[in-house]
Amino acid sequence: MKETNKNKIQQFSPIRLQIYKEFWHALSSFKLNTQRLDDAPIPVHAGFNAGRAIIDNNTGDVIDTPASLLLDGLGGVDGVPLSYAAHGHVHNMNTIEDFKRCDKTALFNSTLDSIKLAKSVDDLIRFLLISFSDMKKFTFHYLAATPAVIDGGAPWLGSMAGCDAALAREIQSVQPAGQWCWIVRRADDGVLSGASVDEWEVFHRDTHSQSHTHNHTPTIAFIDPSSGHAPGWPLRNLLYYICTRFGARKVDVFASRNTHSLYGTLTTDARAYEQVSGVGWEKNSSTHKISPQTIDLSASLDPTKLADQAVELNLKLMKWRILPSLDLDVIGGQRCLLLGAGTLGCYVARGLMAWGVRHITLVDSGTVSYSNPVRQPLFEFEDCAEGGKPKAECAAERLRRIYPGVQACGVQLSIPMPGHPFPTSSKARVESEVHRLDALIDQHDSIFLLTDSRESRWLPTLLGKARNKTVINAALGFDSYLVMRHGTPVNKLGCYYCNDIVAPTDSLSDRTLDQMCTVTRPGVAPIAAATAVEMLTSLLQHPQQKHVGSTRAGGDHVHTDESLLGVTPHQIRGQLGRFDNVQITGMAFDRCTACSDVIQDAYHTQGMEMISRAINDSDYLVNISGYNNRE
Amino acid sequence: MKETNKNKIQQFSPIRLQIYKEFWHALSSFKLNTQRLDDAPIPVHAGFNAGRAIIDNNTGDVIDTPASLLLDGLGGVDGVPLSYAAHGHVHNMNTIEDFKRCDKTALFNSTLDSIKLAKSVDDLIRFLLISFSDMKKFTFHYLAATPAVIDGGAPWLGSMAGCDAALAREIQSVQPAGQWCWIVRRADDGVLSGASVDEWEVFHRDTHSQSHTHNHTPTIAFIDPSSGHAPGWPLRNLLYYICTRFGARKVDVFASRNTHSLYGTLTTDARAYEQVSGVGWEKNSSTHKISPQTIDLSASLDPTKLADQAVELNLKLMKWRILPSLDLDVIGGQRCLLLGAGTLGCYVARGLMAWGVRHITLVDSGTVSYSNPVRQPLFEFEDCAEGGKPKAECAAERLRRIYPGVQACGVQLSIPMPGHPFPTSSKARVESEVHRLDALIDQHDSIFLLTDSRESRWLPTLLGKARNKTVINAALGFDSYLVMRHGTPVNKLGCYYCNDIVAPTDSLSDRTLDQMCTVTRPGVAPIAAATAVEMLTSLLQHPQQKHVGSTRAGGDHVHTDESLLGVTPHQIRGQLGRFDNVQITGMAFDRCTACSDVIQDAYHTQGMEMISRAINDSDYLVNISGYNNRE
Repeated sequence: MKETNKNKIQQFSPIRLQIYKEFWHALSSFKLNTQRLDDAPIPVHAGFNAGRAIIDNNTGDVIDTPASLLLDGLGGVDGVPLSYAAHGHVHNMNTIEDFKRCDKTALFNSTLDSIKLAKSVDDLIRFLLISFSDMKKFTFHYLAATPAVIDGGAPWLGSMAGCDAALAREIQSVQPAGQWCWIVRRADDGVLSGASVDEWEVFHRDTHSQSHTHNHTPTIAFIDPSSGHAPGWPLRNLLYYICTRFGARKVDVFASRNTHSLYGTLTTDARAYEQVSGVGWEKNSSTHKISPQTIDLSASLDPTKLADQAVELNLKLMKWRILPSLDLDVIGGQRCLLLGAGTLGCYVARGLMAWGVRHITLVDSGTVSYSNPVRQPLFEFEDCAEGGKPKAECAAERLRRIYPGVQACGVQLSIPMPGHPFPTSSKARVESEVHRLDALIDQHDSIFLLTDSRESRWLPTLLGKARNKTVINAALGFDSYLVMRHGTPVNKLGCYYCNDIVAPTDSLSDRTLDQMCTVTRPGVAPIAAATAVEMLTSLLQHPQQKHVGSTRAGGDHVHTDESLLGVTPHQIRGQLGRFDNVQITGMAFDRCTACSDVIQDAYHTQGMEMISRAINDSDYLVNISGYNNRE
Repeated sequence: MKETNKNKIQQFSPIRLQIYKEFWHALSSFKLNTQRLDDAPIPVHAGFNAGRAIIDNNTGDVIDTPASLLLDGLGGVDGVPLSYAAHGHVHNMNTIEDFKRCDKTALFNSTLDSIKLAKSVDDLIRFLLISFSDMKKFTFHYLAATPAVIDGGAPWLGSMAGCDAALAREIQSVQPAGQWCWIVRRADDGVLSGASVDEWEVFHRDTHSQSHTHNHTPTIAFIDPSSGHAPGWPLRNLLYYICTRFGARKVDVFASRNTHSLYGTLTTDARAYEQVSGVGWEKNSSTHKISPQTIDLSASLDPTKLADQAVELNLKLMKWRILPSLDLDVIGGQRCLLLGAGTLGCYVARGLMAWGVRHITLVDSGTVSYSNPVRQPLFEFEDCAEGGKPKAECAAERLRRIYPGVQACGVQLSIPMPGHPFPTSSKARVESEVHRLDALIDQHDSIFLLTDSRESRWLPTLLGKARNKTVINAALGFDSYLVMRHGTPVNKLGCYYCNDIVAPTDSLSDRTLDQMCTVTRPGVAPIAAATAVEMLTSLLQHPQQKHVGSTRAGGDHVHTDESLLGVTPHQIRGQLGRFDNVQITGMAFDRCTACSDVIQDAYHTQGMEMISRAINDSDYLVNISGYNNRE
């Protein structure tokens, strides 16, 4: 093995932490979902491979490029097999101010110390990433370091250069499996063998005992991620390790690469590492100074994916501090059926979307008219042209335009109503409407009654009860509103019809224009709609969900049986003229024309026949419910 | 004058009421704004001109087409001069059911009676329109009649035919001014003279005395709106009139037209009008039966105009029954400035539009991000691409898409804030921002504070007070909100800063992501926004408007000093966890850092200099307000 120039200070090639965008996404997700406000360092892995020289096409020269330490996504970097591991920590700060003012030198020195105190060569390649993730803007601020130990007093002298290909292959052939560095010796019989660097003493004792030359120079080899003229920074830490631990002052070094491996003899003297310092902060790739870098992933991401993440952001942040136990999945997983795509339907759909609900079906039989858009927040002027688009489909289409990830569906359907009898010729049509409505109710978890007449709520009340669904009902007056949930057999709370003194009947005919149009103070609908959505979300956070009894605010009562989001009242009746509301509890009425056992039994036994009679015969419901016989 | 065939029953040509769409618009407007629920008959005018024959281009024959009685718009039919008036009534029903079941025969007979009892020829042409205006759909259902008297027992015999042109000109030349019918006589000297039909007796007495022939046949002429082979229905009523009133049994008749006038002798006998009946219901132009017609104006109207009318419909209907004294103009005329185009700004803008506010300016410095559309109801997914559109302009553009008649404007502007000092180099920029904000406040009536930080409300609070504007403030917590109006020197109520224990300062730095993003229950914003808008509208309905004291609901208090829309509280603090709110009154604090006299005086005397100090010097506001010196 030939000697190299001993008087030249050996140069080393820096290493950069290469961060794929997958890592930033994984970090965002970990911060948002798992770590939240905790800003403890996160252990992360990186990896590297042997360097492969990049050759200048014109001159044939090797180009010096920084070596890469590929930062593993927290779940792995897809498609990049990394042979050798490195360990590090991400210090992901909570605020941009924390990021700016944190003691970066202390963090660097701490990492450098762990290298200096390494117990094995596995600890010699370490890195550090300080970051702040602005998840709202998909922008990441960071500063990275891969510390390398520098001998300030007695640098390593020598000059490593290209290695003979046959020798390189021979040294590479004795690399112990999985070891990024190894020691090599050639026995007297000329056969080369390798061992882990950590076996240095045993290995060299054997060498000394077997060898005839006591002055034998030890040889180390390492996988060099660099590809240029100088060996990479890992060698700095390896030299420190063998010098301080095994007393090596002269060593033959083989930098093993895929192409252009290096070889040479390096020497230092007794003063080695009397003064120790470190290098390794990465320079900003724009300014070439050591300063934080910013990466903006918003432009490179698929906009639909950006929206997916952004939409969840505000919700998941609730769990950071305010409500760590909030179950967002139970809300987001609800399949919601909105009967009515008018003012209430549009506002309820928006409220559900904001809560992360992704499965929304709207039902309406009407078309968008010119008076709608200023009150119904999913329609625009252009939707009204030529008689108007069908409201349900138009609203669903708009929901998709707001957030393409939503599964929104619009169904044009009339709801058959008591008091609106149909001729025999329409029997098939009405039956089909009933079956479609029943199928829709069956396919959803929560049913919102948001139509603009009393009698149109009867059939979905009946079917919702029969199918044991969560039913939320909202109805508007001029400056008042009612928001209520229908009861279940467990809580025995009433439905919309339980308090009624008359059976549902035709309330639509004989109405003047101000009675036909929903004449309400514009503020009533958004308040009622938001209240209806929040009533559902509060309910879903209670262990009993729709079966929970009525817990309510007000008076002298203290209710301990609240959901995570607060009280779960049965009915809220609000009045805008007083900017006030009252919470009411009404128990199920055993002669109710929609939810009582006798009515439900009649439906279960007679099905469509019973519904037809309820629609066509104005006395039927009160007769069978026994309502007419009350005292 | 030659005789005509006496044995042929004279036919008459029907007349139709021609209704221009302008009439329907005028009727809609009258119903909506003036008549409302009153369904008393509306007196209306129609008019007619002499007929002008329509000639078949191939045969040269006159085509029989119905004559027109042009129904005057309630304000006149533009561009159609009508020489002769007819009177009638519109029976505009409140409901489609009223329209269907009203006693049409009785209404017809009543009109026929008024013809039969006519005191002058001016009463002989009368008409009747029964209608229902579905103003929501711009559809009008109607049935029209122009009653004519029929002699069932002894019809008029004769056969009127084309009149000699010279004779026609001669008779037309003696028409008394403004009379639609007249009598004609030829003196012995051959000179023709004319007189009003109502002068019949005097006129014919003169004729008899002067004439040598006692058997002279009287001649009547009338302006005939018909143009075909038979004279028009007006002649039926004229014949009835002269027969029953003046005993005429034989008469020469001249039907005066622009072209193709008719002439002939008509006779009846002593049994004339022993049996009287009427005709005159108009046939449906599609079915050719006497049945109601429907006209749909939605397709023929300019969509923007349709929208204008539709948008006002729901509001104006409030005045029909519920609140006749509601002053919609004072609300619709408000120029509203919305500081912040986020969740609150978007919802407030929608609420104002629904109330008819047409002048809305939004101010924001941000761009639309992917997390916005599901919560901020004026943005869509596509608005977020490439860094996002500027929020204020994007929101304004969307308002115009909802209703093209709105004057919506978006201003991209940062609001300078205390606690966020600026370097000297930014002085010009900050001054420009302050002046732009002040100019905007000056140009508007009501200022909504809807930003997402405490300190951003300070400058508009100061300027709003200085310019004596209505200031409404809405702020959100996780599941709570505050909506309040700032006080005036009259009511001495407090502003947002009057209750503060610290001066406005930097609350934006050092915030974790969950503090930087507005983490709220989605229902809070629509409720707070609707409450803010309704607080303004309630205020505007009180005679004192923004100066009214705090009237509020709750407790044992009974407040009589409410506005037409109800209470006018000072502050509403709501909590979604309890589905509840409290109304609070807080008086102005004389050491307030925004609205107190000492602060306002400092601003009035020092202007921009004072604002700069407030922004840059964190102690300035508390020092000059005397806040730090409080006991």
